[in-house]
Amino acid sequence: MNVGYYQFSPCFGDPARNLENVQDALSGADADIIVLPELAFTGYYFENRKELSSLAENVSSSKIVSALINLCKSHDMYIATGFAESDGSNIYNSALLIGPTGAIHTYRKLHLFNTEKEYFDPGNISLKPINIKGANLGLMICYDWVFPEVTRSLAAQGADIILHPSNLVLAYCQKTMVSRCIENSVYAITANRTGTEARPRGQLTFTGQSQIVDTKGSIIASSTVENDDLVIQDIDPSTARDKFITENNHLFNDRRPEYYSAIT
Amino acid sequence: MNVGYYQFSPCFGDPARNLENVQDALSGADADIIVLPELAFTGYYFENRKELSSLAENVSSSKIVSALINLCKSHDMYIATGFAESDGSNIYNSALLIGPTGAIHTYRKLHLFNTEKEYFDPGNISLKPINIKGANLGLMICYDWVFPEVTRSLAAQGADIILHPSNLVLAYCQKTMVSRCIENSVYAITANRTGTEARPRGQLTFTGQSQIVDTKGSIIASSTVENDDLVIQDIDPSTARDKFITENNHLFNDRRPEYYSAIT
Repeated sequence: MNVGYYQFSPCFGDPARNLENVQDALSGADADIIVLPELAFTGYYFENRKELSSLAENVSSSKIVSALINLCKSHDMYIATGFAESDGSNIYNSALLIGPTGAIHTYRKLHLFNTEKEYFDPGNISLKPINIKGANLGLMICYDWVFPEVTRSLAAQGADIILHPSNLVLAYCQKTMVSRCIENSVYAITANRTGTEARPRGQLTFTGQSQIVDTKGSIIASSTVENDDLVIQDIDPSTARDKFITENNHLFNDRRPEYYSAIT
Repeated sequence: MNVGYYQFSPCFGDPARNLENVQDALSGADADIIVLPELAFTGYYFENRKELSSLAENVSSSKIVSALINLCKSHDMYIATGFAESDGSNIYNSALLIGPTGAIHTYRKLHLFNTEKEYFDPGNISLKPINIKGANLGLMICYDWVFPEVTRSLAAQGADIILHPSNLVLAYCQKTMVSRCIENSVYAITANRTGTEARPRGQLTFTGQSQIVDTKGSIIASSTVENDDLVIQDIDPSTARDKFITENNHLFNDRRPEYYSAIT
Protein backbone atom coordinates (compact mmCIF):
# COMPACT_ATOMS: atom_id res chain seq x y z
CA MET A 1 0.00 0.00 0.00
CA ASN A 2 1.38 3.41 -1.02
CA VAL A 3 0.91 5.98 1.70
CA GLY A 4 2.34 9.43 2.11
CA TYR A 5 1.92 13.07 2.86
CA TYR A 6 2.21 16.45 1.25
CA GLN A 7 4.08 18.96 3.42
CA PHE A 8 3.63 22.57 2.37
CA SER A 9 2.96 26.08 3.61
CA PRO A 10 -0.74 26.95 3.31
CA CYS A 11 -1.44 30.58 2.57
CA PHE A 12 -3.63 32.10 5.29
CA GLY A 13 -7.17 32.88 4.20
CA ASP A 14 -6.80 31.74 0.60
CA PRO A 15 -8.47 28.33 0.23
CA ALA A 16 -8.57 28.54 -3.57
CA ARG A 17 -4.82 29.07 -3.79
CA ASN A 18 -4.14 26.27 -1.32
CA LEU A 19 -6.42 23.93 -3.24
CA GLU A 20 -4.57 24.70 -6.45
CA ASN A 21 -1.27 24.00 -4.68
CA VAL A 22 -2.57 20.62 -3.45
CA GLN A 23 -4.09 19.70 -6.81
CA ASP A 24 -0.82 20.48 -8.58
CA ALA A 25 1.28 18.59 -6.06
CA LEU A 26 -0.91 15.48 -6.13
CA SER A 27 -1.58 15.49 -9.86
CA GLY A 28 0.97 12.78 -10.57
CA ALA A 29 0.78 10.99 -7.23
CA ASP A 30 0.57 7.21 -7.26
CA ALA A 31 -0.76 6.69 -3.75
CA ASP A 32 -3.53 4.95 -1.87
CA ILE A 33 -3.58 7.48 0.97
CA ILE A 34 -2.18 10.99 1.21
CA VAL A 35 -2.23 13.03 4.41
CA LEU A 36 -2.32 16.84 4.32
CA PRO A 37 -1.56 19.20 7.21
CA GLU A 38 -4.02 20.49 9.79
CA LEU A 39 -6.23 23.33 8.49
CA ALA A 40 -4.55 22.87 5.13
CA PHE A 41 -6.88 25.17 3.21
CA THR A 42 -7.62 28.05 5.58
CA GLY A 43 -4.30 28.50 7.38
CA TYR A 44 -3.94 28.32 11.13
CA TYR A 45 -3.60 31.43 13.25
CA PHE A 46 -7.07 32.97 13.33
CA GLU A 47 -7.59 36.34 14.93
CA ASN A 48 -10.88 35.35 16.53
CA ARG A 49 -14.03 33.31 16.09
CA LYS A 50 -15.45 35.80 13.62
CA GLU A 51 -12.52 35.43 11.26
CA LEU A 52 -12.63 31.65 11.62
CA SER A 53 -16.37 31.69 10.89
CA SER A 54 -15.75 33.46 7.63
CA LEU A 55 -13.41 30.68 6.48
CA ALA A 56 -14.94 27.54 8.01
CA GLU A 57 -17.10 25.40 5.72
CA ASN A 58 -19.76 22.79 5.98
CA VAL A 59 -18.40 19.48 4.69
CA SER A 60 -21.43 18.75 2.52
CA SER A 61 -21.39 22.09 0.72
CA SER A 62 -17.65 22.77 0.57
CA LYS A 63 -16.11 23.32 -2.85
CA ILE A 64 -12.77 22.26 -1.41
CA VAL A 65 -14.23 18.91 -0.37
CA SER A 66 -15.85 18.45 -3.79
CA ALA A 67 -12.55 19.14 -5.51
CA LEU A 68 -10.74 16.68 -3.24
CA ILE A 69 -13.37 13.99 -3.94
CA ASN A 70 -12.73 14.50 -7.64
CA LEU A 71 -8.99 14.24 -7.08
CA CYS A 72 -9.55 10.97 -5.18
CA LYS A 73 -11.80 9.66 -7.97
CA SER A 74 -9.30 10.36 -10.69
CA HIS A 75 -6.44 8.76 -8.71
CA ASP A 76 -8.37 6.02 -6.90
CA MET A 77 -6.95 7.32 -3.66
CA TYR A 78 -7.91 8.66 -0.22
CA ILE A 79 -6.95 11.98 1.29
CA ALA A 80 -6.89 12.80 5.00
CA THR A 81 -6.86 16.53 5.48
CA GLY A 82 -7.19 19.11 8.18
CA PHE A 83 -10.35 21.18 7.69
CA ALA A 84 -12.03 24.13 9.42
CA GLU A 85 -15.48 22.59 9.72
CA SER A 86 -18.66 24.49 10.45
CA ASP A 87 -21.70 22.54 11.59
CA GLY A 88 -24.65 24.74 12.43
CA SER A 89 -23.32 27.32 14.86
CA ASN A 90 -20.36 25.16 15.87
CA ILE A 91 -16.89 25.21 14.34
CA TYR A 92 -14.43 22.35 14.70
CA ASN A 93 -10.77 21.83 13.96
CA SER A 94 -11.42 18.64 11.98
CA ALA A 95 -9.72 15.99 9.94
CA LEU A 96 -11.68 14.60 7.02
CA LEU A 97 -11.09 11.27 5.34
CA ILE A 98 -12.07 11.76 1.73
CA GLY A 99 -12.25 9.11 -0.98
CA PRO A 100 -13.66 8.50 -4.44
CA THR A 101 -17.17 8.12 -3.02
CA GLY A 102 -17.14 11.24 -0.86
CA ALA A 103 -16.13 12.49 2.58
CA ILE A 104 -16.41 9.20 4.48
CA HIS A 105 -15.32 10.17 7.99
CA THR A 106 -14.86 13.25 10.15
CA TYR A 107 -12.73 13.47 13.28
CA ARG A 108 -12.97 16.63 15.37
CA LYS A 109 -9.87 17.51 17.37
CA LEU A 110 -10.47 16.45 20.96
CA HIS A 111 -7.55 18.37 22.46
CA LEU A 112 -7.41 21.99 21.35
CA PHE A 113 -4.05 23.75 21.44
CA ASN A 114 -3.47 27.17 22.94
CA THR A 115 -5.61 29.91 21.32
CA GLU A 116 -7.60 27.31 19.37
CA LYS A 117 -9.62 27.04 22.58
CA GLU A 118 -10.88 30.58 22.03
CA TYR A 119 -12.40 30.04 18.62
CA PHE A 120 -12.90 26.30 17.99
CA ASP A 121 -15.43 24.07 19.70
CA PRO A 122 -13.91 20.98 21.30
CA GLY A 123 -14.27 17.72 19.39
CA ASN A 124 -17.31 15.56 20.09
CA ILE A 125 -16.82 12.48 17.92
CA SER A 126 -15.49 9.16 19.26
CA LEU A 127 -12.07 7.91 18.29
CA LYS A 128 -12.76 5.12 15.82
CA PRO A 129 -10.74 3.61 12.96
CA ILE A 130 -12.14 3.46 9.41
CA ASN A 131 -11.39 0.57 7.06
CA ILE A 132 -10.38 1.37 3.50
CA LYS A 133 -8.57 -0.88 1.04
CA GLY A 134 -8.07 -3.45 3.81
CA ALA A 135 -6.29 -1.10 6.22
CA ASN A 136 -7.75 0.45 9.36
CA LEU A 137 -7.06 4.17 9.50
CA GLY A 138 -7.09 6.20 12.71
CA LEU A 139 -7.35 9.97 12.52
CA MET A 140 -5.87 12.35 15.06
CA ILE A 141 -4.78 15.99 14.80
CA CYS A 142 -1.57 17.72 15.85
CA TYR A 143 -1.58 18.29 19.67
CA ASP A 144 -3.45 15.00 20.18
CA TRP A 145 0.09 13.53 20.00
CA VAL A 146 0.82 14.45 23.60
CA PHE A 147 -2.01 12.29 24.93
CA PRO A 148 -1.00 8.63 24.69
CA GLU A 149 -4.68 7.81 25.17
CA VAL A 150 -5.52 8.96 21.63
CA THR A 151 -3.28 6.60 19.67
CA ARG A 152 -3.97 3.90 22.25
CA SER A 153 -7.73 4.21 21.84
CA LEU A 154 -7.42 3.99 18.07
CA ALA A 155 -4.97 1.07 18.15
CA ALA A 156 -7.04 -0.82 20.72
CA GLN A 157 -9.87 -0.69 18.20
CA GLY A 158 -7.67 -2.03 15.41
CA ALA A 159 -6.10 1.00 13.76
CA ASP A 160 -3.15 -0.01 11.58
CA ILE A 161 -2.11 3.44 10.40
CA ILE A 162 -2.44 6.73 12.27
CA LEU A 163 -3.11 9.66 9.94
CA HIS A 164 -1.95 12.79 11.71
CA PRO A 165 -2.54 16.19 10.05
CA SER A 166 -0.51 18.72 12.03
CA ASN A 167 0.50 22.36 12.36
CA LEU A 168 3.30 21.82 14.86
CA VAL A 169 5.10 24.69 16.56
CA LEU A 170 6.78 22.71 19.38
CA ALA A 171 9.75 20.39 18.94
CA TYR A 172 8.53 17.32 20.83
CA CYS A 173 6.00 15.65 18.59
CA GLN A 174 8.12 13.91 16.00
CA LYS A 175 10.09 11.84 18.52
CA THR A 176 7.01 11.09 20.58
CA MET A 177 5.23 9.67 17.54
CA VAL A 178 8.08 7.15 17.35
CA SER A 179 7.07 5.97 20.84
CA ARG A 180 3.39 5.90 19.86
CA CYS A 181 4.27 3.49 17.05
CA ILE A 182 6.45 1.27 19.26
CA GLU A 183 3.95 1.02 22.11
CA ASN A 184 1.02 0.25 19.80
CA SER A 185 2.75 -1.43 16.86
CA VAL A 186 1.14 0.93 14.36
CA TYR A 187 2.30 3.09 11.49
CA ALA A 188 1.98 6.86 11.83
CA ILE A 189 1.99 9.51 9.12
CA THR A 190 2.51 12.98 10.56
CA ALA A 191 1.86 15.60 7.86
CA ASN A 192 3.12 18.86 9.24
CA ARG A 193 3.12 22.26 7.58
CA THR A 194 6.01 24.63 7.01
CA GLY A 195 6.34 28.39 6.92
CA THR A 196 5.45 31.32 9.12
CA GLU A 197 2.14 33.04 9.72
CA ALA A 198 2.40 36.67 10.81
CA ARG A 199 -1.10 37.48 11.99
CA PRO A 200 -2.79 40.02 14.32
CA ARG A 201 -2.17 37.81 17.37
CA GLY A 202 1.52 37.34 16.62
CA GLN A 203 3.81 35.21 14.54
CA LEU A 204 4.00 31.42 14.43
CA THR A 205 6.68 29.36 12.72
CA PHE A 206 5.83 25.76 11.93
CA THR A 207 8.38 23.00 12.21
CA GLY A 208 7.93 20.81 9.10
CA GLN A 209 9.81 17.54 9.48
CA SER A 210 6.79 15.51 8.47
CA GLN A 211 7.45 11.82 8.82
CA ILE A 212 6.26 8.26 8.34
CA VAL A 213 7.09 5.90 11.21
CA ASP A 214 6.81 2.13 10.99
CA THR A 215 5.48 -0.30 13.58
CA LYS A 216 8.89 -0.74 15.22
CA GLY A 217 9.43 3.01 15.59
CA SER A 218 11.75 3.48 12.62
CA ILE A 219 11.35 6.72 10.70
CA ILE A 220 11.06 5.36 7.16
CA ALA A 221 10.51 8.73 5.47
CA SER A 222 10.85 12.33 6.59
CA SER A 223 11.14 15.87 5.31
CA THR A 224 13.11 18.98 6.15
CA VAL A 225 11.93 21.90 8.27
CA GLU A 226 11.23 24.21 5.34
CA ASN A 227 10.64 22.55 2.00
CA ASP A 228 7.43 21.59 0.26
CA ASP A 229 7.59 17.83 -0.05
CA LEU A 230 5.37 15.10 -1.45
CA VAL A 231 6.51 11.79 0.03
CA ILE A 232 5.03 8.41 -0.84
CA GLN A 233 6.18 5.19 0.78
CA ASP A 234 5.18 1.57 0.22
CA ILE A 235 4.16 -0.08 3.50
CA ASP A 236 2.51 -3.34 4.50
CA PRO A 237 -0.34 -2.46 6.90
CA SER A 238 -0.68 -6.10 7.97
CA THR A 239 2.58 -5.66 9.91
CA ALA A 240 0.52 -3.62 12.37
CA ARG A 241 -1.64 -6.66 13.12
CA ASP A 242 1.34 -8.38 14.74
CA LYS A 243 1.31 -7.11 18.32
CA PHE A 244 3.97 -9.48 19.64
CA ILE A 245 7.07 -7.65 20.85
CA THR A 246 8.55 -11.01 21.96
CA GLU A 247 7.12 -14.46 21.35
CA ASN A 248 5.57 -14.28 24.82
CA ASN A 249 4.58 -10.61 24.89
CA HIS A 250 1.55 -9.19 23.12
CA LEU A 251 1.29 -5.40 23.44
CA PHE A 252 -2.45 -5.48 24.03
CA ASN A 253 -3.08 -8.85 25.68
CA ASP A 254 -0.39 -8.08 28.26
CA ARG A 255 -2.22 -4.97 29.41
CA ARG A 256 -3.67 -4.94 32.96
CA PRO A 257 -6.59 -2.49 32.57
CA GLU A 258 -7.81 -3.20 36.11
CA TYR A 259 -4.74 -1.26 37.30
CA TYR A 260 -5.28 1.72 34.99
CA SER A 261 -8.35 3.22 36.62
CA ALA A 262 -6.54 6.50 37.42
CA ILE A 263 -6.60 7.20 33.67
CA THR A 264 -10.36 7.18 33.21
CA MET B 1 17.36 17.04 45.47
CA ASN B 2 20.19 14.70 44.49
CA VAL B 3 18.91 11.68 42.60
CA GLY B 4 20.73 9.03 40.65
CA TYR B 5 21.34 5.44 39.81
CA TYR B 6 24.00 2.80 40.03
CA GLN B 7 24.40 0.86 36.79
CA PHE B 8 26.34 -2.38 37.15
CA SER B 9 26.39 -6.05 36.19
CA PRO B 10 24.90 -8.21 38.95
CA CYS B 11 26.47 -11.63 39.31
CA PHE B 12 23.83 -14.35 38.88
CA GLY B 13 22.96 -16.22 42.05
CA ASP B 14 25.39 -14.38 44.32
CA PRO B 15 23.42 -11.86 46.41
CA ALA B 16 26.26 -11.39 48.92
CA ARG B 17 28.70 -10.39 46.21
CA ASN B 18 26.16 -8.05 44.60
CA LEU B 19 25.42 -6.46 47.95
CA GLU B 20 29.11 -5.85 48.54
CA ASN B 21 29.36 -4.27 45.10
CA VAL B 22 26.43 -1.95 45.85
CA GLN B 23 27.72 -1.08 49.33
CA ASP B 24 31.13 -0.20 47.92
CA ALA B 25 29.69 1.85 45.08
CA LEU B 26 27.33 3.84 47.30
CA SER B 27 29.71 4.25 50.23
CA GLY B 28 30.60 7.83 49.29
CA ALA B 29 27.35 8.74 47.58
CA ASP B 30 25.80 12.09 48.45
CA ALA B 31 22.29 11.39 47.24
CA ASP B 32 18.69 11.57 48.38
CA ILE B 33 17.55 8.73 46.12
CA ILE B 34 19.51 6.06 44.29
CA VAL B 35 17.90 3.60 41.87
CA LEU B 36 19.39 0.14 41.31
CA PRO B 37 18.58 -2.23 38.44
CA GLU B 38 15.80 -4.81 38.36
CA LEU B 39 16.64 -8.01 40.30
CA ALA B 40 19.87 -6.31 41.32
CA PHE B 41 20.89 -8.95 43.88
CA THR B 42 19.84 -12.29 42.35
CA GLY B 43 20.56 -11.75 38.67
CA TYR B 44 17.91 -12.11 36.00
CA TYR B 45 17.73 -15.19 33.80
CA PHE B 46 16.33 -17.94 36.03
CA GLU B 47 16.17 -21.47 34.74
CA ASN B 48 12.79 -22.13 36.32
CA ARG B 49 10.57 -21.42 39.30
CA LYS B 50 12.58 -23.79 41.50
CA GLU B 51 15.78 -21.88 40.94
CA LEU B 52 14.00 -18.58 41.47
CA SER B 53 12.49 -19.93 44.70
CA SER B 54 15.91 -20.69 46.06
CA LEU B 55 16.99 -17.05 45.57
CA ALA B 56 13.80 -15.08 46.28
CA GLU B 57 13.47 -13.58 49.73
CA ASN B 58 10.78 -12.28 52.00
CA VAL B 59 11.21 -8.52 52.44
CA SER B 60 10.86 -8.63 56.22
CA SER B 61 13.49 -11.30 56.75
CA SER B 62 15.94 -10.43 53.96
CA LYS B 63 19.53 -9.70 54.96
CA ILE B 64 19.90 -7.73 51.74
CA VAL B 65 17.04 -5.47 52.76
CA SER B 66 18.49 -5.05 56.28
CA ALA B 67 21.83 -4.08 54.82
CA LEU B 68 20.21 -1.58 52.47
CA ILE B 69 18.23 -0.03 55.33
CA ASN B 70 21.52 0.45 57.19
CA LEU B 71 23.07 2.02 54.11
CA CYS B 72 20.10 4.41 53.88
CA LYS B 73 20.40 5.23 57.59
CA SER B 74 24.07 6.06 57.38
CA HIS B 75 23.58 8.25 54.28
CA ASP B 76 20.12 9.65 55.04
CA MET B 77 19.01 8.42 51.63
CA TYR B 78 16.47 6.22 49.87
CA ILE B 79 17.17 3.31 47.58
CA ALA B 80 14.78 1.91 44.97
CA THR B 81 15.89 -1.55 43.96
CA GLY B 82 14.71 -4.51 41.98
CA PHE B 83 14.13 -7.50 44.25
CA ALA B 84 13.06 -11.14 43.83
CA GLU B 85 10.32 -11.14 46.46
CA SER B 86 8.75 -14.21 48.00
CA ASP B 87 5.48 -13.82 49.83
CA GLY B 88 4.07 -17.10 51.07
CA SER B 89 4.02 -19.37 48.03
CA ASN B 90 4.08 -16.46 45.59
CA ILE B 91 7.14 -14.88 44.01
CA TYR B 92 7.13 -11.42 42.49
CA ASN B 93 9.51 -9.40 40.37
CA SER B 94 9.38 -6.43 42.72
CA ALA B 95 10.80 -2.99 43.27
CA LEU B 96 11.33 -1.92 46.86
CA LEU B 97 11.61 1.60 48.12
CA ILE B 98 13.92 1.45 51.11
CA GLY B 99 14.78 4.28 53.48
CA PRO B 100 16.32 4.93 56.87
CA THR B 101 13.20 3.64 58.61
CA GLY B 102 12.83 0.44 56.62
CA ALA B 103 11.33 -0.92 53.41
CA ILE B 104 8.52 1.59 52.98
CA HIS B 105 6.90 0.47 49.73
CA THR B 106 6.75 -2.53 47.44
CA TYR B 107 5.69 -2.48 43.78
CA ARG B 108 5.24 -5.83 42.02
CA LYS B 109 5.82 -5.78 38.27
CA LEU B 110 2.43 -5.71 36.57
CA HIS B 111 3.70 -6.61 33.10
CA LEU B 112 6.00 -9.62 33.05
CA PHE B 113 8.47 -9.94 30.20
CA ASN B 114 9.00 -13.08 28.16
CA THR B 115 10.07 -16.08 30.31
CA GLU B 116 9.40 -14.15 33.52
CA LYS B 117 5.81 -15.28 32.96
CA GLU B 118 6.88 -18.86 33.61
CA TYR B 119 8.34 -18.31 37.06
CA PHE B 120 7.09 -15.00 38.50
CA ASP B 121 3.56 -14.29 39.67
CA PRO B 122 2.03 -11.20 38.06
CA GLY B 123 1.99 -8.05 40.19
CA ASN B 124 -1.06 -7.40 42.34
CA ILE B 125 -0.37 -4.02 43.96
CA SER B 126 -1.91 -0.77 42.71
CA LEU B 127 0.22 1.88 41.06
CA LYS B 128 0.58 4.59 43.68
CA PRO B 129 3.23 7.26 44.32
CA ILE B 130 5.02 7.51 47.68
CA ASN B 131 6.06 10.83 49.18
CA ILE B 132 9.56 11.16 50.60
CA LYS B 133 11.51 14.35 51.27
CA GLY B 134 8.74 16.37 49.58
CA ALA B 135 8.86 14.47 46.28
CA ASN B 136 6.32 11.93 45.02
CA LEU B 137 8.03 8.81 43.74
CA GLY B 138 6.44 6.37 41.32
CA LEU B 139 7.89 2.88 40.94
CA MET B 140 7.76 0.85 37.76
CA ILE B 141 9.95 -1.98 36.46
CA CYS B 142 11.62 -2.50 33.10
CA TYR B 143 9.03 -3.72 30.52
CA ASP B 144 6.36 -1.56 32.17
CA TRP B 145 7.87 1.16 29.95
CA VAL B 146 5.98 -0.05 26.89
CA PHE B 147 2.61 0.58 28.51
CA PRO B 148 1.92 4.32 28.60
CA GLU B 149 -0.79 3.55 31.15
CA VAL B 150 1.80 2.84 33.86
CA THR B 151 3.57 6.20 33.92
CA ARG B 152 0.26 7.90 33.22
CA SER B 153 -1.42 6.24 36.21
CA LEU B 154 1.45 7.26 38.48
CA ALA B 155 1.63 10.82 37.16
CA ALA B 156 -2.15 11.25 37.35
CA GLN B 157 -1.80 10.51 41.06
CA GLY B 158 0.95 13.09 41.50
CA ALA B 159 4.22 11.25 40.85
CA ASP B 160 7.06 13.72 40.27
CA ILE B 161 9.84 11.22 39.65
CA ILE B 162 9.55 7.76 38.07
CA LEU B 163 12.03 5.29 39.55
CA HIS B 164 12.57 2.57 36.98
CA PRO B 165 14.78 -0.42 37.87
CA SER B 166 15.42 -2.30 34.63
CA ASN B 167 17.15 -5.25 32.99
CA LEU B 168 16.64 -4.15 29.41
CA VAL B 169 17.48 -6.34 26.44
CA LEU B 170 15.58 -4.43 23.74
CA ALA B 171 16.64 -1.12 22.26
CA TYR B 172 13.40 0.84 22.49
CA CYS B 173 13.01 1.79 26.12
CA GLN B 174 15.41 4.65 26.55
CA LYS B 175 13.86 6.79 23.83
CA THR B 176 10.33 5.93 24.90
CA MET B 177 11.04 7.09 28.46
CA VAL B 178 11.78 10.49 26.92
CA SER B 179 8.20 10.54 25.62
CA ARG B 180 6.86 9.37 28.99
CA CYS B 181 8.48 12.40 30.60
CA ILE B 182 7.21 14.83 27.96
CA GLU B 183 3.63 13.58 27.99
CA ASN B 184 3.41 13.57 31.81
CA SER B 185 5.89 16.31 32.76
CA VAL B 186 7.74 14.00 35.14
CA TYR B 187 11.34 13.03 35.75
CA ALA B 188 12.37 9.42 35.08
CA ILE B 189 15.39 7.54 36.35
CA THR B 190 15.96 4.33 34.39
CA ALA B 191 18.60 2.21 36.15
CA ASN B 192 19.54 -0.51 33.72
CA ARG B 193 22.09 -3.27 34.19
CA THR B 194 25.01 -4.19 31.98
CA GLY B 195 26.74 -7.43 31.14
CA THR B 196 25.75 -10.84 29.82
CA GLU B 197 24.13 -13.78 31.56
CA ALA B 198 24.89 -17.17 30.01
CA ARG B 199 22.40 -19.47 31.68
CA PRO B 200 20.72 -22.84 30.95
CA ARG B 201 17.95 -21.16 28.90
CA GLY B 202 20.37 -19.17 26.76
CA GLN B 203 22.34 -15.99 26.81
CA LEU B 204 21.08 -12.47 27.44
CA THR B 205 23.02 -9.26 26.94
CA PHE B 206 21.74 -6.19 28.72
CA THR B 207 21.86 -2.76 27.15
CA GLY B 208 23.08 -0.40 29.90
CA GLN B 209 22.57 3.21 28.88
CA SER B 210 20.85 4.09 32.13
CA GLN B 211 19.52 7.61 32.09
CA ILE B 212 17.85 10.46 33.92
CA VAL B 213 15.29 12.37 31.87
CA ASP B 214 13.84 15.72 32.91
CA THR B 215 10.27 16.92 32.66
CA LYS B 216 10.77 18.33 29.16
CA GLY B 217 12.25 15.10 27.83
CA SER B 218 15.91 16.12 27.95
CA ILE B 219 18.33 13.37 28.92
CA ILE B 220 20.26 15.15 31.67
CA ALA B 221 22.51 12.21 32.58
CA SER B 222 23.26 8.87 30.94
CA SER B 223 25.75 6.01 30.92
CA THR B 224 27.42 3.81 28.36
CA VAL B 225 26.32 0.32 27.30
CA GLU B 226 28.96 -1.49 29.30
CA ASN B 227 30.45 0.40 32.23
CA ASP B 228 29.61 0.35 35.90
CA ASP B 229 28.47 3.86 36.66
CA LEU B 230 27.21 5.75 39.70
CA VAL B 231 25.47 8.89 38.49
CA ILE B 232 24.00 11.54 40.76
CA GLN B 233 22.20 14.61 39.45
CA ASP B 234 20.67 17.58 41.21
CA ILE B 235 17.05 18.07 40.14
CA ASP B 236 14.13 20.20 41.29
CA PRO B 237 11.13 17.86 41.68
CA SER B 238 8.76 20.82 41.90
CA THR B 239 9.29 21.32 38.15
CA ALA B 240 7.11 18.24 37.71
CA ARG B 241 4.19 20.01 39.38
CA ASP B 242 3.99 22.42 36.45
CA LYS B 243 1.83 20.59 33.90
CA PHE B 244 1.41 23.53 31.52
CA ILE B 245 2.95 22.84 28.11
CA THR B 246 1.66 26.26 26.93
CA GLU B 247 -0.02 28.94 29.00
CA ASN B 248 -3.38 27.55 27.87
CA ASN B 249 -2.56 23.82 27.87
CA HIS B 250 -2.37 21.70 31.00
CA LEU B 251 -1.29 18.12 30.29
CA PHE B 252 -3.82 16.63 32.69
CA ASN B 253 -6.70 19.13 32.70
CA ASP B 254 -6.81 19.00 28.88
CA ARG B 255 -7.48 15.26 28.91
CA ARG B 256 -10.88 14.04 27.67
CA PRO B 257 -11.28 10.79 29.62
CA GLU B 258 -14.83 10.29 28.36
CA TYR B 259 -13.27 9.51 24.96
CA TYR B 260 -10.71 7.02 26.31
CA SER B 261 -13.02 4.18 27.24
CA ALA B 262 -11.36 1.78 24.78
CA ILE B 263 -8.35 1.79 27.14
CA THR B 264 -10.08 0.45 30.20
